[in-house]
Amino acid sequence: METVKIALLGLGTVGTGVYKVLKAQQEEIPHKVGAKIQLKKVLVRNTEKASRKLDDPSILMTEWKSILEDPEISIVVEVMGGIEPARRYILDALHAGKSVVTANKDLLASHGKELMDAAAETKSDLLFEAAVAGGIPIIRPLKECLAGNHISEVMGIVNGTTNFILTKMAEEGMEFQEALALATELGYAEADPTADIEGLDAARKVAILASIAFHSRVTFDDVYTEGITKITATDIRYAREMGRDIKLLGVAKETPEGIEARVQPMLIPSTHPLASVRDSFNAVFVHGDAVDDTMFYGRGAGELPTASAVVGDILDAVRNMVFGCRGRIGCTCYKEIPLKKMEDISCAYFLRMQVENRSGVLANIAGVFGNNCVSIAQIIQKGKKKDRAEIVVITDEVKEKNFQDSLAVISGMSTVKEISSMIRVYGQI
Amino acid sequence: METVKIALLGLGTVGTGVYKVLKAQQEEIPHKVGAKIQLKKVLVRNTEKASRKLDDPSILMTEWKSILEDPEISIVVEVMGGIEPARRYILDALHAGKSVVTANKDLLASHGKELMDAAAETKSDLLFEAAVAGGIPIIRPLKECLAGNHISEVMGIVNGTTNFILTKMAEEGMEFQEALALATELGYAEADPTADIEGLDAARKVAILASIAFHSRVTFDDVYTEGITKITATDIRYAREMGRDIKLLGVAKETPEGIEARVQPMLIPSTHPLASVRDSFNAVFVHGDAVDDTMFYGRGAGELPTASAVVGDILDAVRNMVFGCRGRIGCTCYKEIPLKKMEDISCAYFLRMQVENRSGVLANIAGVFGNNCVSIAQIIQKGKKKDRAEIVVITDEVKEKNFQDSLAVISGMSTVKEISSMIRVYGQI
Repeated sequence: METVKIALLGLGTVGTGVYKVLKAQQEEIPHKVGAKIQLKKVLVRNTEKASRKLDDPSILMTEWKSILEDPEISIVVEVMGGIEPARRYILDALHAGKSVVTANKDLLASHGKELMDAAAETKSDLLFEAAVAGGIPIIRPLKECLAGNHISEVMGIVNGTTNFILTKMAEEGMEFQEALALATELGYAEADPTADIEGLDAARKVAILASIAFHSRVTFDDVYTEGITKITATDIRYAREMGRDIKLLGVAKETPEGIEARVQPMLIPSTHPLASVRDSFNAVFVHGDAVDDTMFYGRGAGELPTASAVVGDILDAVRNMVFGCRGRIGCTCYKEIPLKKMEDISCAYFLRMQVENRSGVLANIAGVFGNNCVSIAQIIQKGKKKDRAEIVVITDEVKEKNFQDSLAVISGMSTVKEISSMIRVYGQI
Repeated sequence: METVKIALLGLGTVGTGVYKVLKAQQEEIPHKVGAKIQLKKVLVRNTEKASRKLDDPSILMTEWKSILEDPEISIVVEVMGGIEPARRYILDALHAGKSVVTANKDLLASHGKELMDAAAETKSDLLFEAAVAGGIPIIRPLKECLAGNHISEVMGIVNGTTNFILTKMAEEGMEFQEALALATELGYAEADPTADIEGLDAARKVAILASIAFHSRVTFDDVYTEGITKITATDIRYAREMGRDIKLLGVAKETPEGIEARVQPMLIPSTHPLASVRDSFNAVFVHGDAVDDTMFYGRGAGELPTASAVVGDILDAVRNMVFGCRGRIGCTCYKEIPLKKMEDISCAYFLRMQVENRSGVLANIAGVFGNNCVSIAQIIQKGKKKDRAEIVVITDEVKEKNFQDSLAVISGMSTVKEISSMIRVYGQI
């Protein structure tokens, strides 16, 4: 029986997980894929620090060349993260005829085309199930199982840190800062949580998902992104009173006017399957013309869940070697669909504001919306304090531009003391 | 560009769906798999009846031989259902070197080994994503994406008819017969609903899922099966008061004592992701040592959702031809794990009964449980009517045999007027 030799680039959280999973599966792998796997080399920056993580520290290397130029190594597993040198290593490996498995969403969301082109040119495998939603199988299901569908929407909760924070805010009434502090303490948030809480991490995943679902390249820069830092426990409480939860959603739709791709906190009906996705769990919702609604749920991050996806890809790459069909699933972006501008999207809106408590104020606000073709579904006065009143306006589905034009006028009105929050609403009101 | 010619066996609900999806995807398929697909022949019993479903009725055949002996046809898609002649046709096709895609769960759950052996022997593809949970991708995720895991449990809601009935009972307070009548009226239940409501359909899917998840053959006969006909609205109401829903669950676990495979109505915590699976939707929950919990949700039946899975398999079979790697994913049952007997499983139980309303009755019942090593988590007296009282006993997790032994004694007690229901409880009390 053949032994496929592989190299691991990086031995951080995911790399360590991959090492553990390969070790645990060592005896079963030959039954599963018809070949043995040997982890021959591991690239790290500091071999001393890494050595206690491995049974055999002699496989640690600091020189990429020693892997690239090793003809025995046929699969390179990149789990170091970041753009460079990961990008160069992957391109080098593909051009050297090696298959590549990567978990690098930053790189794929920005340089996906370059990498996929290199894989196509060299007829190599470039697999990246772990780049989106950690352990949840979603790339292969989209590219293979659902290939009979025209997919019109992919959306979901693709960042566990923010979902954990929003869950704590919703279920325990915490404010954002308090929930973030808890997430940091429990290791769900990184020391610098910007990429999570500002929605950047989710946007990368949306770019990758949209590219695959709609067969047209969408990059990180194409995704309109808003984070959850402005969401308050009050917003969540009001949303719940309306039978809705607030979730940070990545939404990608193919519409007649082009692809819409965005990450935003949104109100979602509490009966929607995504509303029940709690804590750090992720879930991706897919709508196809044949399959209808389908959802994939699981752990979107973490050492072993992410390693599960990486090892699944390694095993597929090995199968492709055993069967001589490398490059079997390549790039599927065979269309060029334009991007829809954010101002052209349609959505319902939740607007909470503090206004002067006197007659005529509501009428004036309603008038501004009316002048901008924004129809109002509800206006609710939530509370009064002396001369102030808090009101919440829910619009029907209207054009973003019309809503923003209205908001610009309303926020300039002398009777409007504060725009407390503006949150989009998923689905019909 | 190559044109792969295929034949469809059967033009019922699923067959018609496959025809429609292939037609809708005709232009995109070459981009997706690198070859064109032509539906060359369709096998039906009555060409006249079928002719109005097709643009070109001349492709209709009634003779299997005309397909089997057509060397141009390289993929046979079996969507006729039933054991014979489907079994013989599939074996014939495999032995003739054709790839086979099937949605036939009855056949796979009973004769899976014979078919998989034939596929292995002839190095052909035998794909069957549609046989479990309709449109939901689950077979390929288990065999490929999650291949790095030791999977210890697969369970879920794999029958839409019964889930629809239980949803109506829970949300609208209907009794079983009323909900079944509604399901029949809406087309969710067949004229003879036995296979659905007695859990037989679910048991076939559990057999297939367990075989793949645990790499050891489990057949339909190995699955202990109970239906939902005895569940009442009262049971569901009481369960909800305890923060639980009642669902017909297919449960397959690999335990140190062997594989446990069963279909039973069970109480499940309302916070469990499966509890929010409503109406005719299905969902499969998988626990792996690396990936942790993951769930796959969607439509488990229906013309187009099932066709989505069938066409996904057809496209994969075509890819395997284009890349010369037929048989790339074969049988994965490389172990022989014994089956655990039902009497050896451990579970918590919900027992509702009508007893004489006098002192000592509860103590006697509790005594019987105590004598059989069944520890009680709760005894709740739900109501009294003259000389009768209704009580509900919830046990801790205990051995099925011990519980059944207790139940035999209790049901024979003169003070116990009726055992109204006995329902197992999923998870810890």
